Amino acid sequence: MKRLLLLSLSLLSIAALASGPSQYVNPFIGTSNFGATHPGAQYPHGMASVSPFNVAYGGELNKFEKDAAWNSRVYIHENRYLTGFSHLNLSGVGCPEAGVLLLMPTAGKLELDASRYGSTYSDERASPGYYHSKLDKYGITAELTSTARTGLSRFTFTRDQSHILLNLGLGLTNETGGMLKVVSDQEVEGMRTLGTFCYQAEDVRPVYFVARFSRPARQSGVWKKMPPYRNVEADWIGYNNTIKPYPNYRQEMAGDEIGAWFSFDTRKDESIEVKVGISFVSIENARANLMAEQPDFDFDQTRRNSVSAWDKLLSKAEVEGTEENKTLFYTALYHSLIHPSLISDVNGDYPVAGSHQIGNSKVEERYSVFSLWDTHRNLHPLLSLLYPGLQTQMVRSAVAHGRESGWLPKWELYGMETQVMVGDPGTVMIADTYLRGLRDFDVDSAYQLMRKAALQEQDNPLRPENADYLKLGYVPVDDEGPYDGSVSTSLEYYLADYGLAQLAKTLGKEQDHKLFSARSLGYQKLFDPSSGMLRPKKRDGQWLSSFDPQKGRNFEPAPGYIEGNAWNYRFYVPHDIAGLIELLGGENSFLEQLEATFETNNFDMANEPDITYPFLYHYLDGQANRTADRVRQLIAAHYGNQPAGLPGNDDAGTLSAWLVFSMMGLYPVTPGNPEYAVFEPVFDKLILHLDQDYYPAAKLTILKREEDSTTIELNGKALNRPFISHQQLVSGGSLTH
Amino acid sequence: MKRLLLLSLSLLSIAALASGPSQYVNPFIGTSNFGATHPGAQYPHGMASVSPFNVAYGGELNKFEKDAAWNSRVYIHENRYLTGFSHLNLSGVGCPEAGVLLLMPTAGKLELDASRYGSTYSDERASPGYYHSKLDKYGITAELTSTARTGLSRFTFTRDQSHILLNLGLGLTNETGGMLKVVSDQEVEGMRTLGTFCYQAEDVRPVYFVARFSRPARQSGVWKKMPPYRNVEADWIGYNNTIKPYPNYRQEMAGDEIGAWFSFDTRKDESIEVKVGISFVSIENARANLMAEQPDFDFDQTRRNSVSAWDKLLSKAEVEGTEENKTLFYTALYHSLIHPSLISDVNGDYPVAGSHQIGNSKVEERYSVFSLWDTHRNLHPLLSLLYPGLQTQMVRSAVAHGRESGWLPKWELYGMETQVMVGDPGTVMIADTYLRGLRDFDVDSAYQLMRKAALQEQDNPLRPENADYLKLGYVPVDDEGPYDGSVSTSLEYYLADYGLAQLAKTLGKEQDHKLFSARSLGYQKLFDPSSGMLRPKKRDGQWLSSFDPQKGRNFEPAPGYIEGNAWNYRFYVPHDIAGLIELLGGENSFLEQLEATFETNNFDMANEPDITYPFLYHYLDGQANRTADRVRQLIAAHYGNQPAGLPGNDDAGTLSAWLVFSMMGLYPVTPGNPEYAVFEPVFDKLILHLDQDYYPAAKLTILKREEDSTTIELNGKALNRPFISHQQLVSGGSLTH
Repeated sequence: MKRLLLLSLSLLSIAALASGPSQYVNPFIGTSNFGATHPGAQYPHGMASVSPFNVAYGGELNKFEKDAAWNSRVYIHENRYLTGFSHLNLSGVGCPEAGVLLLMPTAGKLELDASRYGSTYSDERASPGYYHSKLDKYGITAELTSTARTGLSRFTFTRDQSHILLNLGLGLTNETGGMLKVVSDQEVEGMRTLGTFCYQAEDVRPVYFVARFSRPARQSGVWKKMPPYRNVEADWIGYNNTIKPYPNYRQEMAGDEIGAWFSFDTRKDESIEVKVGISFVSIENARANLMAEQPDFDFDQTRRNSVSAWDKLLSKAEVEGTEENKTLFYTALYHSLIHPSLISDVNGDYPVAGSHQIGNSKVEERYSVFSLWDTHRNLHPLLSLLYPGLQTQMVRSAVAHGRESGWLPKWELYGMETQVMVGDPGTVMIADTYLRGLRDFDVDSAYQLMRKAALQEQDNPLRPENADYLKLGYVPVDDEGPYDGSVSTSLEYYLADYGLAQLAKTLGKEQDHKLFSARSLGYQKLFDPSSGMLRPKKRDGQWLSSFDPQKGRNFEPAPGYIEGNAWNYRFYVPHDIAGLIELLGGENSFLEQLEATFETNNFDMANEPDITYPFLYHYLDGQANRTADRVRQLIAAHYGNQPAGLPGNDDAGTLSAWLVFSMMGLYPVTPGNPEYAVFEPVFDKLILHLDQDYYPAAKLTILKREEDSTTIELNGKALNRPFISHQQLVSGGSLTH
Repeated sequence: MKRLLLLSLSLLSIAALASGPSQYVNPFIGTSNFGATHPGAQYPHGMASVSPFNVAYGGELNKFEKDAAWNSRVYIHENRYLTGFSHLNLSGVGCPEAGVLLLMPTAGKLELDASRYGSTYSDERASPGYYHSKLDKYGITAELTSTARTGLSRFTFTRDQSHILLNLGLGLTNETGGMLKVVSDQEVEGMRTLGTFCYQAEDVRPVYFVARFSRPARQSGVWKKMPPYRNVEADWIGYNNTIKPYPNYRQEMAGDEIGAWFSFDTRKDESIEVKVGISFVSIENARANLMAEQPDFDFDQTRRNSVSAWDKLLSKAEVEGTEENKTLFYTALYHSLIHPSLISDVNGDYPVAGSHQIGNSKVEERYSVFSLWDTHRNLHPLLSLLYPGLQTQMVRSAVAHGRESGWLPKWELYGMETQVMVGDPGTVMIADTYLRGLRDFDVDSAYQLMRKAALQEQDNPLRPENADYLKLGYVPVDDEGPYDGSVSTSLEYYLADYGLAQLAKTLGKEQDHKLFSARSLGYQKLFDPSSGMLRPKKRDGQWLSSFDPQKGRNFEPAPGYIEGNAWNYRFYVPHDIAGLIELLGGENSFLEQLEATFETNNFDMANEPDITYPFLYHYLDGQANRTADRVRQLIAAHYGNQPAGLPGNDDAGTLSAWLVFSMMGLYPVTPGNPEYAVFEPVFDKLILHLDQDYYPAAKLTILKREEDSTTIELNGKALNRPFISHQQLVSGGSLTH
């Protein structure tokens, strides 16, 4: 209770600083309930961010420890033991990665072991571009802010002997190893290896950094955890399985667990700032990023710049409603604007996909962290709508990734294709963008890459089961691995084929359109009339006999399904709802089964396959009004202005994007079909400010009439059906409920 | 027996290639009996060398393992399991260090674990600049050669799948950690940390390297030993406490145990060469060294260059005698010409002493690895005599070290002062050099540094006990640490004060001469008439009561003595033998005690304090003829043409320099007093070719007359006493026995 009170007070105090919509953002939302967001200082789409790190060495102070279970979070609201502030952090990702380059201020006797130098903390506050807390053990106030590629920490000390540690050993990533060099009494540079994403992906990469202090240290040095020695070495060596300090060391130090410290004589209330630049290309580029984005030490200005960048983006949607709803909405929009994130340096250099070469993107910015199985569903359509320039750059990045590596991205992380999850979501994302009218990218290359993924039978990393799929029209369950669910995979392929077919049509490729349209309907082969489910089928055409449609909840393995059960996937044919309705026996029957999904606890708000189901009422004659009710019920049940205020892992912003659309009363149900289901928004009024470089109109206003109404009007004309096309929407005017 | 036979055959075959004195060198001498030499390819005073490494993971195949006991050897003749060829190696050093940058050729299935990829070997041959063996497991022939700063390996494969591994984890050093980067399919670069010398020294340094292959690899990658994982990580991660390969990785990889592999498709009998350049400054300098010293791949020419460099140095002493004696002599001279070794790069860059800055020595070469407690006694006098240019450069390096760090070197290693052993031997070494007429160095700085070491009472790393010493005239035993024997330390200070006094006199500093001369006689205060020993004394003037003059053999701790017992140190007053004779009751009594030393097994041929004792007969009227007998007896007992042919650790060439002088019939008994005891050499004739840039004469000839003689004549004139001054010697002519 006390902490919640403090939080509320904090939000008030921040509000005083911010006048734009960023004042409504509560970065603590999603820091509990496995949301996997972080409350740290985060610039929009920033490569760097600075987050409190409280998932290690906590003992009883921490409810969750990073290696005690599958944990993908650098910060967990329930935990209490903080061991530093990490400078590379993912937001809403389900596998442990990054969480490295940890700065930690301490005081008194120099202690280099994170299991001992950590501290509890209090007076925690966070707002876009800013985080504040007090480290109880040391009385140090820590404040964080950041730019796109750099972090800035301000530590205010109360004692005369103060230290700032940089730990390269600790991190959320499962990879090990780093190198650093103290280059002066004010600067340290180095690299840290990342990768082995989701414990299994093969690729690894270094992140490079330069950290610079606002004043020279009195003394500095590096440390390394020494191995356990035996025999004569154990007899003689002073540091056995312990941390060895190397005072005043000034050359490269490398190892599995290393770090550097800087010690200062500080006056009471003296602040020392540390700015950290990062790069995925080189130490030199990390320094160039730092010098370009933070030439000086100016914490307050850096923070103001971040707030201003957030306000600029967030104000594209202007809403009128309760404070609570504004908080939910703008926080969700904030969480939708973190990934994909920048990977190119200020000079345009970036790590080439699928190799260890360096590319240069010239003037454009290169984006990374494409969790496309999640984000193709709604996050990229949201960006296309409100931030078409950003979305265009992201598509250009994805296509460049494809040109470089030979394949469009699926789950791209820092230039690595991690091969996590299933399907061919890059095709869907890019086709959808094109169909929304954003076409300033190399569509020829994109199309060829999509076609290759759709047609290549062997050695196809995007569609590893393609030979069977092309032959049978579905992925058979026979030899599926534990994490490639044959039904789930098939459904992803159908949707990708649909997207590709729509793109082909637009590009005038009629034959391809026919070919892929036909394939997209292959889902019918998986429909089992006896269970009414999309059911695992064997190569010989027989259904998998042992079949429990409930199995697969809570991430337990279930043959045919990945991250879900048969119910969760039951209606996942967004491109042919009409056909599915028919298979399920018509609208009444469909409605009955749809309602049953929600009522029997077979709807999972925390994962992607079924997140369009609340909008499926729109496809049933006369039932569209149920959508808004269902949506509001789900928001009330799963979202809120508290740390546990996300249904689960934010999935790189996908659950947040769901909330943004849902609160606006719009939802892009079918990627590849640029229209939105339209239903009553939670706000009385909202204005979408459109980008006239891309769209005809400057804004669209959505209004709720004071009187009850059964019609929705666009520019005064009632809609025939409760959908509005993207083209209509971006032509502006007013949408009245 | 079989191996010895092979060795003999090998020497014969090498002889065919070499026509100069290097043909007599047997690099296997000292590779057993703890000699700590290595049989690898070694250039004179080379920074780099390439040695077989057989002290790890051998199990029952190895008699000695690097970490099973105190082991300072990269190669041990009794061992059989080879895990590679190391590119930075010490020769005759008593603490484990270096032995890093291990190349290993393998064949068949790629195996990255040294405990499994190692092999026994056969057909082993070694000669200056060349090593050859066959790796039994793979049928690979390995040949090694080197230049001053680079190594070159030629691996001849018999199978089609071949690999060359570079292991940065394995090494003799107790330090850990390295970084590497595969920069192309023919090149890898990186660094490896060294240091914690003798398990305890604080300083560490990186050695940098670039390795280049003579042809591109088909495939390459890097590896890292992963930590032991627990919990969820153990459940999911594929490499748990095992070596993880990263194929095709091309960025920096850092960690405690890392390496790189290069795989080749090879024809039968195809050779692949690998050249490795090293530097203590930077990767760039390692590459510059490599390109300067080995622009091409030409194994045979590189080997010829090394042989030629050796012949040039070894031929300064031309001897006539048995093949066996020539082998002993030239091998000893060879072992005397390894350390101090180069630390400056081809561009003159070197690591500054006592800091991590980079200096540039312009045209001169900077030397490192000064084991001065050992080498000041005879190795530097030997260099002064035969290689005055080299010795001058070494003194210039030592003085520069002093200017940079504030103190002359004691045990300097790769730019680090390791503080190993006791005393102030840099003063002795430099004073002795000056007094031999080699004066082309900054004698003012040197003198100031010597004086500072002699006079500074507190914070004096060279004479940590100086306050007591200056007050009492000796170092009291009261608070001595386990390894700073108060008597031993005092004796080193007396000798240093003597050297400083002699230098002061030559420089016209009469007051200093008097001051330090008087101090040098302080040994008298430690003479205990009752035991006849130089005995530990307490601060209050009382003798240490519990006193056993035998205690301290075999490196067991004995109060007052380091690496020896009271007997070993009994006559260690080389600068005042006359005074000591008097204290011991006159010449007869002295002779009796001297003989007893040898007869009661209280003489240790394997360590330095007593190595002048065989020459002390020269100070007793009419007893000088005993010297040659004693010397020959010791040579026969302790030296020989076999791996165990050194008495013990070569101590950076000191035991070998003892043999060189002893076989020549000359010995510089008193550092700081430039004269030699003269006795019958083992050779019938020897010619010392002098360097006329430094000395008046081109050569000195030493001859044994066919008839027995009791006089020694210099240029036809009988010597009054069996000593000859350095000045006389370098004036040339003939010395006839």
